[in-house]
Amino acid sequence: TVRKLFLLPGDGIGPEAMNEVRKIISYMNSALSAGFETDEGLVGGCAYDAHGAAISEADMGKAMAADAVLFGAVGGPKWDGVDYDVRPEAGLLRLRKDLELFANLRPAICYPALAASSSLKPELVEGLDILIIRELTGGVYFGEPKTITDLGNGQKRAIDTQVYDTYEIERISAVAFELARTRRNAVCSMEKRNVMKSGVLWNQVVTALHKEKFSDVKLEHMLADAGGMQLVRAPKQFDVIVTDNLFGDMLSDVAAMLTGSLGMLPSASLGAPDGKTGKRKALYEPVHGSAPDIAGKGIANPIAMIASFAMCLRYSFAMVAEAEALEKAIANVLDKGIRTGDIMSEGCSQVGTVEMGDAILSE
Amino acid sequence: TVRKLFLLPGDGIGPEAMNEVRKIISYMNSALSAGFETDEGLVGGCAYDAHGAAISEADMGKAMAADAVLFGAVGGPKWDGVDYDVRPEAGLLRLRKDLELFANLRPAICYPALAASSSLKPELVEGLDILIIRELTGGVYFGEPKTITDLGNGQKRAIDTQVYDTYEIERISAVAFELARTRRNAVCSMEKRNVMKSGVLWNQVVTALHKEKFSDVKLEHMLADAGGMQLVRAPKQFDVIVTDNLFGDMLSDVAAMLTGSLGMLPSASLGAPDGKTGKRKALYEPVHGSAPDIAGKGIANPIAMIASFAMCLRYSFAMVAEAEALEKAIANVLDKGIRTGDIMSEGCSQVGTVEMGDAILSE
Ligand SMILES: CC(C)[C@H](C(=O)O)[C@@H](O)C(=O)O
Ligand SMILES: CC(C)[C@H](C(=O)O)[C@@H](O)C(=O)O
Repeated sequence: TVRKLFLLPGDGIGPEAMNEVRKIISYMNSALSAGFETDEGLVGGCAYDAHGAAISEADMGKAMAADAVLFGAVGGPKWDGVDYDVRPEAGLLRLRKDLELFANLRPAICYPALAASSSLKPELVEGLDILIIRELTGGVYFGEPKTITDLGNGQKRAIDTQVYDTYEIERISAVAFELARTRRNAVCSMEKRNVMKSGVLWNQVVTALHKEKFSDVKLEHMLADAGGMQLVRAPKQFDVIVTDNLFGDMLSDVAAMLTGSLGMLPSASLGAPDGKTGKRKALYEPVHGSAPDIAGKGIANPIAMIASFAMCLRYSFAMVAEAEALEKAIANVLDKGIRTGDIMSEGCSQVGTVEMGDAILSE
Repeated sequence: TVRKLFLLPGDGIGPEAMNEVRKIISYMNSALSAGFETDEGLVGGCAYDAHGAAISEADMGKAMAADAVLFGAVGGPKWDGVDYDVRPEAGLLRLRKDLELFANLRPAICYPALAASSSLKPELVEGLDILIIRELTGGVYFGEPKTITDLGNGQKRAIDTQVYDTYEIERISAVAFELARTRRNAVCSMEKRNVMKSGVLWNQVVTALHKEKFSDVKLEHMLADAGGMQLVRAPKQFDVIVTDNLFGDMLSDVAAMLTGSLGMLPSASLGAPDGKTGKRKALYEPVHGSAPDIAGKGIANPIAMIASFAMCLRYSFAMVAEAEALEKAIANVLDKGIRTGDIMSEGCSQVGTVEMGDAILSE
C-alpha cells in the first residue's frame, strides 16, 4: 500500500521538529516497507513570504489529496503586522475548515518521568491521562458575521458570532463517547449554558445523544468556568472532556500546561469517515506553538511532533502496534534521563533536537 | 452621612455568609457611627420562587437607588429546569447590565497562611497578588442575536454574538491602567486577535489608549489561551490583567483556584462615576458560587463575602482605613490558625460560619 503524507513544517521550530519525523518515516520505509510517500508544502508566515497567502491553492489541493497532513507550527513576530486574512494562523484555520476536521483530539498526559516539572504538586498530576475532544470547525472561529465596522465619531464595532447546529454537536459528542468506551468510559461535557444559547443547545444535544446511543458511558456536565477550576484543582477526576472550539482552545491549553509536558503533547484533527472508503481526512500537529525565540538553535523539543506522528499511525493508518512502539520509544528515552532544555532536570543529560530524534529512533 | 446598602443574599450559602457581614455592619454603626442603612431583597432561585422572576422590579429599583449592593450567590439544582429567561443567573446578569457595572475587579490573592492549600507548588503562589479586570456588561454575555432557531429536520441552530464597541474597551482599559498605577504598574491585556475580530479591535484600542494616556504603565499583550497557560505556569509574572467578559470569566476562575483561597476571594463590579456626584454604582460579591451541597449546614466560609464588604468600604465609601482594618482582621484570624472546613489544614482549629464571623469581628 501507498500511504500519502503531506508535510507542512511551517514557521519557527516547526521545520526542525519535522526533520526528526522525517527520519522516522525513512526508517519505517526502509526497515518496515511502510510505503510512505511524502510531499511537502508551505504554511503560515513562510507561505505568506512566498505567495502572499497563508497557504497556496496548490498546497491546499495536496492537503486534500493526502491520506494525512503533518503540520508543524505557524507564526512569529515577523508577521505580526500582516493583514488579518493572510496572517499565519489563517493557513491552519483554512486547513481545518476545508478538510472538515471537526474533531480535535488533545491528550493531556503526564509522562511519569516529568511529573516533577509540572507547576502542580506531583501527586495531582502523576499518571494524569485526559483526552480533550475539541470541536474544531464551528463556533466563534468561523461564524458570520465576523466584522469590524466604523460607526463614525471615532467608534468602531467588532462582531464575532458563535454558531452551532445540532448535527455539529452530535458528531463531536459521538466521537467523545466512542473514544471514552476505549478508555475509562466517562465523558464530561463543558459549556456555559447559564449564559450562552449555544451552551443550552450543546447541553441538550449531548444529553439526548447519550440517552439514545451511549447510555453505557458515564456522562457529566460542567460549566466551562468551573471546568477550568476543576482542571487546576483535581485534574485526575476527568477521562474524556468534550467542548466547543473556543472553550476547547482555552481548556486544552490549561490542561497541557498542567502536565509539565507541554513540549511533548500531540494532537489529531479528524474529519468524518468517508461513506465509501471509511477513510477520514486528518491533520496532526503538536500542541505547542512556533516558539520563534528558540527557532533555528537546534534546541527545540521534537517529541510533540513525533508523538503527533504516532497519532497519525494510529488514526490514519490503523498501524496500532507501530504507534505503540513509537510511544514506548519516547517513554524509554525519557526514562533514560535524556532531555531537551525545556524539560531538563537535575541528574539528566541535556541534548538538542537532532540527538533527541536519534535517541527515539534507536529505541 | 447616610450610607445606603442593599443586601441580596440570594441562594445556597449566600444567606449564611451575608449574616456575618450584617454583624460587621451593626458593629460599625454602633461603635463607629458609620451610618449604614440596610435594606434587603431577593435574587436568584428564591426570587423565582417568590415572584416567578430572578429579581423583582421593586428590588431592581432598590438596587438602583442604593449606594452599594452586597450580593451573596445564586442558583442550585432546584432551579435547573426553569426557563432560560428566569433562571437564577438572570438576576445577576440584569443587575450587572441595568446598573451598568462594566468593571469587574477580581483580586487573586494568595493568603500566606493558605499557600500550602493551593494545588500549585507553594513557591509559585506564595505572595501572589494579581488583579483581574474583567469587562462585565458587553461581549457574548449580552450581544444580540442570542437565539435558538428550529431549522426543521430535527436540526436547531444556536447563536450567540460577541459585540464590542471602542468606548467599551476604552473605559475598561482605563480602569486597568489607573489601578495598575496604584500597584506594580503593569497591565497584561488578553484576547484572541488571531481568531476574533473583537480581539483585533480590543488590541488596537488598548494599544492606542496606552500610547495616548498611560504610556508610563508597562503594557503587554497575550493571547487568551497562552494567558491561561501562563497563569498556571508562573502566575506571579502578572500584576493587572484586563480582558473581556467571557475570557475574564474563565481566566479569573482559574486564577482564583490557583491561590488555594477560592472561598476567600471577593469581587467588586463598578459603574462609571456619575458626572455630577462622582459616585459609582457598585455591586460586591464573592467569587465562589452558591455551593448548594453545603448550604444550611453552618460550615460555609464567610470570608469571601466579608472581604467583598471590605472592597465596598474602599470603593463605594472611600473608607480606606476601615477596609484595611477589616482585611487585616481576616489575615490575623488566618494567622491564628482559625479555619473553616474548606481551608482546614493540620494543626489548625476548625470552626463554622458563625464562629469565623465572630473571630473576624473581634479582631
Ligand atoms: C493558532 C491558533 C489559531 C490556534 C487556535 O486558536 O485554535 C491554536 O491556539 C490552537 O489551539 O491550535
Ligand atoms: C453565574 C454566572 C452567570 C457568572 C458569569 O458567568 O459571569 C459567574 O460565573 C461569574 O463569574 O460571576
